Amino acid sequence: MAVNLLPPDAADLLPIQGIRLATASAGIKKPGRQDVVLIEIAEHSATAAVYTRNAFCAAPVQICREHQKKTSPRYLLINSGNANAGTGQQGMQAARQSCQAVSEVTGVSSHAVLPFSTGVIGQQLPVDKIEAVLPDAVANLQADNWLGAAKAIMTTDTVAKARSVQCRLSGQVVTITGIAKGAGMIRPDMATMLAYIATDAVISQPLLSVMLQKVMDESFNRITVDGDTSTNDACVLIATGRARQAEITELDSDDAQCFVEALTDLCRYLAQAIVRDGEGATKFISINVTGGADSAECRQVAYTIAHSPLVKTALFASDPNWGRILAAVGRSGLNALDLTKVDIALDEVQIVSAGQPAPDYTEARGQAVMNQSELTIHVALGRGDLEDLVWTCDLSYDYVKINAEYRT
Amino acid sequence: MAVNLLPPDAADLLPIQGIRLATASAGIKKPGRQDVVLIEIAEHSATAAVYTRNAFCAAPVQICREHQKKTSPRYLLINSGNANAGTGQQGMQAARQSCQAVSEVTGVSSHAVLPFSTGVIGQQLPVDKIEAVLPDAVANLQADNWLGAAKAIMTTDTVAKARSVQCRLSGQVVTITGIAKGAGMIRPDMATMLAYIATDAVISQPLLSVMLQKVMDESFNRITVDGDTSTNDACVLIATGRARQAEITELDSDDAQCFVEALTDLCRYLAQAIVRDGEGATKFISINVTGGADSAECRQVAYTIAHSPLVKTALFASDPNWGRILAAVGRSGLNALDLTKVDIALDEVQIVSAGQPAPDYTEARGQAVMNQSELTIHVALGRGDLEDLVWTCDLSYDYVKINAEYRT
Repeated sequence: MAVNLLPPDAADLLPIQGIRLATASAGIKKPGRQDVVLIEIAEHSATAAVYTRNAFCAAPVQICREHQKKTSPRYLLINSGNANAGTGQQGMQAARQSCQAVSEVTGVSSHAVLPFSTGVIGQQLPVDKIEAVLPDAVANLQADNWLGAAKAIMTTDTVAKARSVQCRLSGQVVTITGIAKGAGMIRPDMATMLAYIATDAVISQPLLSVMLQKVMDESFNRITVDGDTSTNDACVLIATGRARQAEITELDSDDAQCFVEALTDLCRYLAQAIVRDGEGATKFISINVTGGADSAECRQVAYTIAHSPLVKTALFASDPNWGRILAAVGRSGLNALDLTKVDIALDEVQIVSAGQPAPDYTEARGQAVMNQSELTIHVALGRGDLEDLVWTCDLSYDYVKINAEYRT
Repeated sequence: MAVNLLPPDAADLLPIQGIRLATASAGIKKPGRQDVVLIEIAEHSATAAVYTRNAFCAAPVQICREHQKKTSPRYLLINSGNANAGTGQQGMQAARQSCQAVSEVTGVSSHAVLPFSTGVIGQQLPVDKIEAVLPDAVANLQADNWLGAAKAIMTTDTVAKARSVQCRLSGQVVTITGIAKGAGMIRPDMATMLAYIATDAVISQPLLSVMLQKVMDESFNRITVDGDTSTNDACVLIATGRARQAEITELDSDDAQCFVEALTDLCRYLAQAIVRDGEGATKFISINVTGGADSAECRQVAYTIAHSPLVKTALFASDPNWGRILAAVGRSGLNALDLTKVDIALDEVQIVSAGQPAPDYTEARGQAVMNQSELTIHVALGRGDLEDLVWTCDLSYDYVKINAEYRT
């Protein structure tokens, strides 16, 4: 039911030298599905990560932050089916124990293991089930298992999300491959749902962190399904350096710009894939707000529209009830908004011009745009030159159904 | 389907000396239903009003503000079925014309007429249909028609909302009777959906405005159904003075305190009635946040919980998935929130104590509270002594259905 989102083809996902992946079935929430992923990172790789800003962040996020300060990661251990969030000291202990278990099987320090969990909040993690499958997982690590990993981290996702891109740096082709999961509790804040991205490019660790933050702001931080920032959001970017091109150390170098462009392309694809697969989504909506005094106020208007249950249900119904968009703009809290300068359009169909109903608007023209599975809501504020863009989806019966029945 | 909300009984609604009401059927949206209300206010009454803060406020709201500056209102003209919002200059002209029409039938200045509209946004008001029924409406004005008026202002409401209360001021019984409407696009901001309240008490106009604002903050400004502030919110409070008790002029007098208490009681009833009849609502939820450094941050946390689609769908499903409440508290944006001081409870069942899962919590205890049609979510922040309270409802299939099919 995802909106114009095809499952990835294993052949399109390129291995990254220095990265191997394994999946396993630990029966964490339900038996029989792959729900554990182990990602091995070669020595001397650089790794950057961003995490949720939710104050109630999950135990694994706290452990990740702690371990990252101590040493460079060598293994990422991910489970779906249980978020290990809201689990208190027992949850912290479980996350630590899972890292220790990886340490025992692989011989690396437990601080070199980063744990990640996604799934239901508030239930203790059955860490013994994860421990039991680790020896097999380590034995099965493979370079060409990105698709398997993408599938194993899914929760309410209906389609796996994965992509590879390549770019040429100083004459040398480098590859970036990434996977992501997420469909609900999606309003990333300085991070995202779970996403793991690796490249063989040679990039210094400090620059890798800068690049990740920059690209986040242009991709995962622009999406919202339901406005609910998760307790477990995390995005990891690894550079194994195996491409052996000249190391990138400066953000303003040609190579860095080229790499950031390719990484942005990949992250936008994954971020938009999360929205296309948003819980119950039937439409993919871009909200483009221009003419702002700053980009923050453009985002404020865009998110007010994106989170309005009335706008989202009208989109679901393909009802050009544009009064709801206008009401959302009006309540978005902008100081001294001059309505006589506001324009609103659905794709190319103008609905409000200078605060008045557009003279050439007809219900038939609005309906034609609303019938599409993808459309852009344009709002021009007439207050300045800045703009911003947010991607979201509609609110359907299935959103309620999925979230009312999530734990059953 | 409203939650524990009975239709008012006509016999319980007390007339207010100096107020007469009429309804009429103008066929604004659908033929055959009463959709116009005319309220006559006796000379020398004091009237206070508050309106939506939505920047895209409707034409009638703009006319109300303009007319109130010029003279004291003598008639309120209300229609349902069309909000006359997003209608530009033509909508302003229609609202003016409707006041002029009342002026012609009654002989008062058109500035003494306040117009109100509620219903679909973005369609022009068929003002000629309203004009056609005005002579009959004026001929049918009655003191005991509060219930008829409450019914005629309904849109997606399923139950009429009306109440009378009495209090004794300096030995004299005074009466307050009020009606309200609203079920969706409900997150009043300094005002409410439509509400009309009258009393026979003698209260000076300046004090009446102060009282109204004070009581709004304790009633209509505490509710949310979907977070969408309407373009048409308005609340009017009239004091006809016919009770002839000693005029109330000071807020700190015993009479004023007594009156405010009775008015608060009535407004809370009406405000809660709007939530109980919230679109698709199956549960009535109080969210009580204590221990804040100021009441604004308590409200911020309460509204974040109240607007979370994930919390609302869990409430609909009677699923004690309290991790969603915890996640909402965590993303509510409070600066330096210390999780080790946070307590969360459902009614009397503690779920989080000092940031940790409460030791005596069991799924069965959480389920027992969740099965109720009314419950309170308690959050203690441990940051200070202030608190705040918000009322909301759950998010059900029917919310989506009602709003996806609203215009059909």
